[in-house]
Amino acid sequence: MMIVMKESATDEEIAAVAEKIERAGARAHPSRGARVTVIGAIGDVEQDASVESIGLEGLPGVDRVVPILKPYKLASAQFRHGERTVLEIDGRKVGGEHFALIAGPCTVESREQTMHTARVVRDAGATLLRGGAYKPRTSPYAFQGLGVEGLRLLAEAKAETGLPIVTELMDIRDLDAVLEVADVIQIGARNMQNYPLLTEIGRSGRPALLKRGLSAPLDELLMAAEYILKEGNQGVMLCERGIRTFENDYRRTTLDLMAVPILKELSHLPVIVDPSHAAGRRDLVPALSLAAAAAGADGIIVEVHPNPDEALCDGPQALPTDTFAEYAATVERAAALAGTALSAV
Amino acid sequence: MMIVMKESATDEEIAAVAEKIERAGARAHPSRGARVTVIGAIGDVEQDASVESIGLEGLPGVDRVVPILKPYKLASAQFRHGERTVLEIDGRKVGGEHFALIAGPCTVESREQTMHTARVVRDAGATLLRGGAYKPRTSPYAFQGLGVEGLRLLAEAKAETGLPIVTELMDIRDLDAVLEVADVIQIGARNMQNYPLLTEIGRSGRPALLKRGLSAPLDELLMAAEYILKEGNQGVMLCERGIRTFENDYRRTTLDLMAVPILKELSHLPVIVDPSHAAGRRDLVPALSLAAAAAGADGIIVEVHPNPDEALCDGPQALPTDTFAEYAATVERAAALAGTALSAV
Amino acid sequence: MMIVMKESATDEEIAAVAEKIERAGARAHPSRGARVTVIGAIGDVEQDASVESIGLEGLPGVDRVVPILKPYKLASAQFRHGERTVLEIDGRKVGGEHFALIAGPCTVESREQTMHTARVVRDAGATLLRGGAYKPRTSPYAFQGLGVEGLRLLAEAKAETGLPIVTELMDIRDLDAVLEVADVIQIGARNMQNYPLLTEIGRSGRPALLKRGLSAPLDELLMAAEYILKEGNQGVMLCERGIRTFENDYRRTTLDLMAVPILKELSHLPVIVDPSHAAGRRDLVPALSLAAAAAGADGIIVEVHPNPDEALCDGPQALPTDTFAEYAATVERAAALAGTALSAV
Amino acid sequence: MMIVMKESATDEEIAAVAEKIERAGARAHPSRGARVTVIGAIGDVEQDASVESIGLEGLPGVDRVVPILKPYKLASAQFRHGERTVLEIDGRKVGGEHFALIAGPCTVESREQTMHTARVVRDAGATLLRGGAYKPRTSPYAFQGLGVEGLRLLAEAKAETGLPIVTELMDIRDLDAVLEVADVIQIGARNMQNYPLLTEIGRSGRPALLKRGLSAPLDELLMAAEYILKEGNQGVMLCERGIRTFENDYRRTTLDLMAVPILKELSHLPVIVDPSHAAGRRDLVPALSLAAAAAGADGIIVEVHPNPDEALCDGPQALPTDTFAEYAATVERAAALAGTALSAV
Repeated sequence: MMIVMKESATDEEIAAVAEKIERAGARAHPSRGARVTVIGAIGDVEQDASVESIGLEGLPGVDRVVPILKPYKLASAQFRHGERTVLEIDGRKVGGEHFALIAGPCTVESREQTMHTARVVRDAGATLLRGGAYKPRTSPYAFQGLGVEGLRLLAEAKAETGLPIVTELMDIRDLDAVLEVADVIQIGARNMQNYPLLTEIGRSGRPALLKRGLSAPLDELLMAAEYILKEGNQGVMLCERGIRTFENDYRRTTLDLMAVPILKELSHLPVIVDPSHAAGRRDLVPALSLAAAAAGADGIIVEVHPNPDEALCDGPQALPTDTFAEYAATVERAAALAGTALSAV
Repeated sequence: MMIVMKESATDEEIAAVAEKIERAGARAHPSRGARVTVIGAIGDVEQDASVESIGLEGLPGVDRVVPILKPYKLASAQFRHGERTVLEIDGRKVGGEHFALIAGPCTVESREQTMHTARVVRDAGATLLRGGAYKPRTSPYAFQGLGVEGLRLLAEAKAETGLPIVTELMDIRDLDAVLEVADVIQIGARNMQNYPLLTEIGRSGRPALLKRGLSAPLDELLMAAEYILKEGNQGVMLCERGIRTFENDYRRTTLDLMAVPILKELSHLPVIVDPSHAAGRRDLVPALSLAAAAAGADGIIVEVHPNPDEALCDGPQALPTDTFAEYAATVERAAALAGTALSAV
Repeated sequence: MMIVMKESATDEEIAAVAEKIERAGARAHPSRGARVTVIGAIGDVEQDASVESIGLEGLPGVDRVVPILKPYKLASAQFRHGERTVLEIDGRKVGGEHFALIAGPCTVESREQTMHTARVVRDAGATLLRGGAYKPRTSPYAFQGLGVEGLRLLAEAKAETGLPIVTELMDIRDLDAVLEVADVIQIGARNMQNYPLLTEIGRSGRPALLKRGLSAPLDELLMAAEYILKEGNQGVMLCERGIRTFENDYRRTTLDLMAVPILKELSHLPVIVDPSHAAGRRDLVPALSLAAAAAGADGIIVEVHPNPDEALCDGPQALPTDTFAEYAATVERAAALAGTALSAV
Repeated sequence: MMIVMKESATDEEIAAVAEKIERAGARAHPSRGARVTVIGAIGDVEQDASVESIGLEGLPGVDRVVPILKPYKLASAQFRHGERTVLEIDGRKVGGEHFALIAGPCTVESREQTMHTARVVRDAGATLLRGGAYKPRTSPYAFQGLGVEGLRLLAEAKAETGLPIVTELMDIRDLDAVLEVADVIQIGARNMQNYPLLTEIGRSGRPALLKRGLSAPLDELLMAAEYILKEGNQGVMLCERGIRTFENDYRRTTLDLMAVPILKELSHLPVIVDPSHAAGRRDLVPALSLAAAAAGADGIIVEVHPNPDEALCDGPQALPTDTFAEYAATVERAAALAGTALSAV
């Protein structure tokens, strides 16, 4: 890291910072400019972490501390020397040249709704089936999902269609039940920094789809992934699902498609985009899906419902099943632009 | 709620929306303007919630849906008919005319650090002692707190100084251990929408200090409080601790002091401000503390350390113990401006 | 507009609001719910504007005022009954099925740089040539453009290549000089709400490319367009160029591609995307360009330089001329996905 | 500045960056860490600016460029060696220990409204009279101010009350008319980066009140001030008036009070706070005014109207004249907390 001193810093203050760096086990390397001195703290990675924790920002004469090394290791592109991770989920590949079309209902509501949707998305070429049994809801009075019964319906849908299942875990105490059904465990945006949950999912070894928090810088998303990876679980997909900005009219959040090429530069992990939750409006979903695929995403996760106007949750953003095949075909063409193809068995 | 139709909406579309509202058990009340029709959905509160869940936004001809009623009930100012909640925590009052000065180390590091800080803040007139045993850290490689040993030290500090304890719960599985020591359970910003955690804290009946998420609109903060309140726990303090904005230089987040008067208008719950985490720099803490108190906050929560430059966590934002008494005295004067006085036994 | 009253509003307060609405020439239409009364102010458009200006938000008992009608008229999709505007700029069409590839140097630096770039982009199929003679710079000490000499070089480039010219006007006093050369006048993001500038460009009748301000909601962008349109100038292109969000690492701003389908729903005006300024990094430009075209943009504006590492301004975001033809070909394929084709003579 | 190289950077890439720095006239000073090399570009200030303009970000192997020196000079605290600027405006001091209470109508509407308000604020101890003759309005259809007639009324108000006048200039062509009346020229938030306007006001020598743009980082505000200062005009007041964040409910913008202590650290210029425009609601203005004064602001600028419900512009945020004296007295007490006193003749 680099410590930028104030213009007014005295020689004693510069020496005190240098001494503190060396006490933490790194080397201090000052560069004196015409007006400002910058001190490099040089060491190996572990030392860098120690230096970070010694609170140099508060010392007299210090203007600011500029981190140089990325705070994540296992999630970084360097860790795999530039090679991209390709996950294999029950026979389906995700990442590299394999574009994952993940589709299904926001929430599992009934046997018929789930089976019908599963068949439609399978026939249209979907890679994985998504569906929520446990729903994090802003209001404690809103429908919270079918729970275990929802998991059972997802298992049934998998048995019939062969599609691997992506479903969300909210409560660490439901982990075992979810592990019985989920091929991929979804971590919702609100839980991106729920560290005990991340750690337990890491320990479970099951692939995870980690949604970016609404105000998480990409480095924080990668640090959250690091919590999972460091438990030995390599199966992490990153998911951009919209961020909070000043712009709240006409959409629920702002989809950050720049995150796609940037995450692919920073990390070896696959990058998925969720246009449905980002927009909250189905009419924006096709344009955003094409844009995500053309920008090089490794997949998209979209909501589909046989009758969106009757959905118990997030109906306005669900695509209707009856136009899904056509939608999937255009997404496939956009993915081809970026050199990927829909992944299926 | 009001449903604003598009200018191009047909009579059939208007009728379809109205019918859907009535099927959900509310009355539809259309107002036809020169260009646009607006349909009011009128019913009692529960009906309003039902109407909200029926996904009118996706229907043909609908421009947007404008909620009228606040989505929270128990947290609303109306629920207590304008009377403010005054909590009593082991003899100390918080709220109304009672200003809470909550102070202590970010993290419990050692017996000596904890005891010394506790004595200093008690002598300076602090209301409650804060201290972290479990620390949510962005990096999995950073110091995560002393855990149970930290709780034990807090209990000892309370035994000696008489100060009630505020400490954070991150993992639902640590609830019992925390309940043995905490007079107030802190819920961190990252966990503001960790619904299982909120629900269990609600059930425990122990007062909670609920920190606002970094991108949580005030209505979402109040909805999170509602999760606690609906379990029968009335002891919720709301805590503004800075929000994420485009402005990232020279501070960690942007303290939103407008939240103070607005939350006091929307809700009967006490409003606390955390200038330490908002700023991440101790030199900003005094000015922000005065501002918070002058703006009418019901308390502030600040970090104090005997030797901030040696702190294991967040040292740069900690006030040193040796100037804390002076600091507390100026905060007291600012609180007086807003008509409140430091709360003590 | 709808006026939402507080739960505590008295009958007198409701009557006072209604009376004030009627005095402003509209009809007041109250809907009394179980807890809250909402008053519709119904009238024709001009009355609606009058009602807006009467400050109902401040009246006793008023919770908030919800505008119903869009504040812009000439820019609205309704104004042209859903038909999209297709501009014709010296023989090139922009809008509808005509995708505009607008390319050229950030800043006109020299005769050779300008001519070479102009030839390259013309040969690759560009629609218009962009180039800055007057540059708004954050620092008063930075290179501010060649001014009149830059305009002269642009005229020469047009004479040679036949490409119409897009160039920025910053200072109202330079209008005549710019009108001599510019086929399209660019209004920079910082000047989006420079109303005298908008008005004079409106009066000039010359087509304008209006960049969205870094924190402008889409409605404000359309209101800025309205300033131009109301002077009788119909030639406005809207340009998304990135917005300010909490996310500042690894890019200059956050490109808001949701703006593309939303603006196309709200307005009949063509929508252009500027990936170069949004990113500030050339390596992100190709992915974002494909995404913009796939999302349905009516064009993109990109920066190109024969030797970006030597550019006087914004070199890091410029595409090199020697790969531009390949870039243009992939953009063309992405545009085809959304049903448009590169516009040329 | 420091150039952080990528982990994958080759020795050749490092050498190429170093060479480019030296060609620009600075010295290159590389620090090789275990994983990453950082190159310091060291030179005097002018060289630093040259290095900044050479586009190192785009070179192969470069991860990012970290500026070390502040981009402004005349506005920096260092420029005056830590001494604060105290302006003298027709006998009233602003800055240092002199707190400016700037008050008056949003817009000059009539002789009676202006004179009455001027007398009330003078009697309550105001330092300067504010009032708008030219109003930047989001809508081209809204009331745009009385123009020259408004300036005339302000001159009359000054003649009667002796209060110096603060009024906004929007159009460079109105400069001479405004100079005849204004003791301080206000630059609105939308014009913070209207460089021709800043330059001309700089040349006029008249003190300026420069409002922060809604999405301007503090460094950009100071760069805008630098445009004025570099023309030889030392009379700049900086004004925080709320920023755009995700939080749009219940207020117009988010007041950033952290800006007060930070600006006072970065710059010698006085810092004024505008709670009226920030909130858009008069009921928040008193709490925010106390907070601003307690945080150490050098003044506040507030809107006052004899009958806010009838105001032609921004009535909902105006304080009524009949409670203004009481308001001014509480602000005075809050300013005293921060060691300042109301400035008057």
